[in-house]
Amino acid sequence: MSSERNANRRVIIVGGGFAGLAAAKALADAPVDVTLIDRTNHHLFQPLLYQVAMAGLSPADIAAPIRKVLRHQKNASVLLGEVVGVDLEQRRVHARDDRTVHALPYDHLVLAMGARTSYFGNDAWREHAIGLKTIDDAIEIRRRVLVAFEAAEREPEGAERDGLLTFAVIGGGPTGVELAGALRELAHFVLRRDFRRIDSDHARVVLIEGDDRLLQGMDPASSDAARAQLEDLGVEVRLGDMVTGVDAEGVQLGDDHLRARTVLWSAGVEAVPLTRELGVEVDRGGRVKVKPDCSVPGHPEVFVVGDAATLEGADGRPLPGVSPVAMQQGEYVARLIAEHRLPEQRAPFRYHDKGQMATVGRRRAVAETRRVRLKGFLAWMAWLLVHVWYLIGFRNRVAVLLNWTWQYATYQRGARLITGDRLGAHRRPKAADEEAG
Amino acid sequence: MSSERNANRRVIIVGGGFAGLAAAKALADAPVDVTLIDRTNHHLFQPLLYQVAMAGLSPADIAAPIRKVLRHQKNASVLLGEVVGVDLEQRRVHARDDRTVHALPYDHLVLAMGARTSYFGNDAWREHAIGLKTIDDAIEIRRRVLVAFEAAEREPEGAERDGLLTFAVIGGGPTGVELAGALRELAHFVLRRDFRRIDSDHARVVLIEGDDRLLQGMDPASSDAARAQLEDLGVEVRLGDMVTGVDAEGVQLGDDHLRARTVLWSAGVEAVPLTRELGVEVDRGGRVKVKPDCSVPGHPEVFVVGDAATLEGADGRPLPGVSPVAMQQGEYVARLIAEHRLPEQRAPFRYHDKGQMATVGRRRAVAETRRVRLKGFLAWMAWLLVHVWYLIGFRNRVAVLLNWTWQYATYQRGARLITGDRLGAHRRPKAADEEAG
Repeated sequence: MSSERNANRRVIIVGGGFAGLAAAKALADAPVDVTLIDRTNHHLFQPLLYQVAMAGLSPADIAAPIRKVLRHQKNASVLLGEVVGVDLEQRRVHARDDRTVHALPYDHLVLAMGARTSYFGNDAWREHAIGLKTIDDAIEIRRRVLVAFEAAEREPEGAERDGLLTFAVIGGGPTGVELAGALRELAHFVLRRDFRRIDSDHARVVLIEGDDRLLQGMDPASSDAARAQLEDLGVEVRLGDMVTGVDAEGVQLGDDHLRARTVLWSAGVEAVPLTRELGVEVDRGGRVKVKPDCSVPGHPEVFVVGDAATLEGADGRPLPGVSPVAMQQGEYVARLIAEHRLPEQRAPFRYHDKGQMATVGRRRAVAETRRVRLKGFLAWMAWLLVHVWYLIGFRNRVAVLLNWTWQYATYQRGARLITGDRLGAHRRPKAADEEAG
Repeated sequence: MSSERNANRRVIIVGGGFAGLAAAKALADAPVDVTLIDRTNHHLFQPLLYQVAMAGLSPADIAAPIRKVLRHQKNASVLLGEVVGVDLEQRRVHARDDRTVHALPYDHLVLAMGARTSYFGNDAWREHAIGLKTIDDAIEIRRRVLVAFEAAEREPEGAERDGLLTFAVIGGGPTGVELAGALRELAHFVLRRDFRRIDSDHARVVLIEGDDRLLQGMDPASSDAARAQLEDLGVEVRLGDMVTGVDAEGVQLGDDHLRARTVLWSAGVEAVPLTRELGVEVDRGGRVKVKPDCSVPGHPEVFVVGDAATLEGADGRPLPGVSPVAMQQGEYVARLIAEHRLPEQRAPFRYHDKGQMATVGRRRAVAETRRVRLKGFLAWMAWLLVHVWYLIGFRNRVAVLLNWTWQYATYQRGARLITGDRLGAHRRPKAADEEAG
């Protein structure tokens, strides 16, 4: 609509996550017009999403309106809409709002749509094993977990109540470790004196990982430390157990069945479906196989960054799907665009790995850089500092710090709300009811 | 289930709002077993709900888990469930959880289910004119308002965009006044620099009241002061205008049509449907006509308190549906139950009216007691102090204070999140689309 107003190059960025927002901000002084399109109006600080799911933080504490983040950047505008297609030949993005599909022309395109939960083809599991990628996911997990305790309180002793008080977490990456630890703490510290008939501390939290160790991306010593800290907290860690089924009653692990009415899924992600429709090569998880400059083969004006792309690092292994990779890629392609580099002038993207960390709970975490490995209290302090530091927006940082301090001092959680369809979570599916009757 | 364990009288309280929670807490030292049943797991501080709707506070800031509030009260237990019926003759409450209906026997019953939005028989308006009674309502209002600005930003100039930037608030009671003022402030202060194509400050907020003044429950001088402060803020106040229709395009006011894609409804409430099924006399709004001791005629062991009941005050007019009445009634019936008073020994309920207040916005409010009337900054300070004071739970009070301080200093709002079905709010109904095509 403003296409003829001036001769600035038009940059469209799809996605306001770590990668997309980093790219937009890095283009602030470039002679370009930036349009950032996202399906939601907020940037989400994903690393803390598990704390919303575990009733520790409110959604607003870890989200910032994209418009607010970019309000002072005069060359950037924000569009709430869903990208339904990209025409690489005509150089147009097709974005749908509530009524129409718009074709938006671009000179440079940055695709940063991120990832979504993957069930590796077992889509029937989706209903029972909920993933954690959006605020709505987090609120739904919070609801299911809190409702399970409520239902257990009403249930007489027996297998049914045990199932309500058993929580399975599938996937032993950072999110799985964090969810399992926080869930155990919720049962042990927060809910303990709230019920009259059940002892919430008897709740079982079972963390299931198909491989032989947790936190594959970290050093085996960190994996062992995380496991020890989880077990110390009371989490049952099951390694080398392959999930073969998930239904309303629990998890099938080969011949073994774990009765659990609440199942959380953190076993994998895949790129959003749009990547498969671009007509370019993708890996099994739908990630675009980008060139060393993060561009799409044959289209030097189109970049894919963050979790929607796959690229080998210096060690020959694909770069991990973590926020530092996304942010660095976003800034890198912004520089290429700002300087209008031709493909042959571009130095390949290099990831500067500052280390990795995962938190287990109160004063329990693991952290490592190339030189140092920490566990326990020191790792937890490092985790706290890094996460508050990176949390966007001054206000959110204060709110999170306040909440954490309060939780630390009182062993309470401030966001224990069941909202939405309150009583429906543990309703059995109809078929099972009819069989039972 | 514990009915034979001891000889304590069994008290069932239905509803964890101001009235029910006050009754439960006032029974702490009585020789009774208290069961509080609620459909949600939290007590909601209703007077601040409009701030959640206007993106100023998070739901968790104004809600406290009922279990947590009562955790140290040994004679109280909490049940998450929906009461579907009451058998006054058999003295049993029928409560449904996610799977079954339980019949719970009582010796004393306190019904404190509160009210819900009433459309006075025009239930077709419900879809387009959203009320504000629950957290889910507040989040939905927040979503519709924020989505309207987003849609306006995409829309070319014209009637359609004007409709998106017009917000109608129907009903000039405290909630309507507060919503209209906060909405105008959102447009004027918060969103102003966030958009590139629209000026959010041009958004129209129209407050519609059928009577000839706002805030009927207060002195006419307060009504005038509220109106002046609203108009000063830029709200259009329409008095004496009867709403004759509400649809996706706006509000019909007799011969006049106001094009407004977002319509908020604060024109009235009625008791929840359960009251009509008790077989006792109710008023037009479904409120049980209780005796001077808040009991149900013919059933001295059953009390109805708060918004579910109607009772005349000392001036011969029905007591207003406000939280002080609810709390005082809850405490009053708790005392009758604790002391096991026979009907003839009961002194009638007397409401101690400490005054009323409504806030318009930043440093704008009205407040009055029998002796003093305040407006502007002083009224606003009084409003702040009273609301923070009564907000349950130390932690919420700190969070709210922090949020307000931050908002006051920065003119920002911290909870500007669009969640849920993000793009659907302003989708036109199908029929209109087809006509247009």
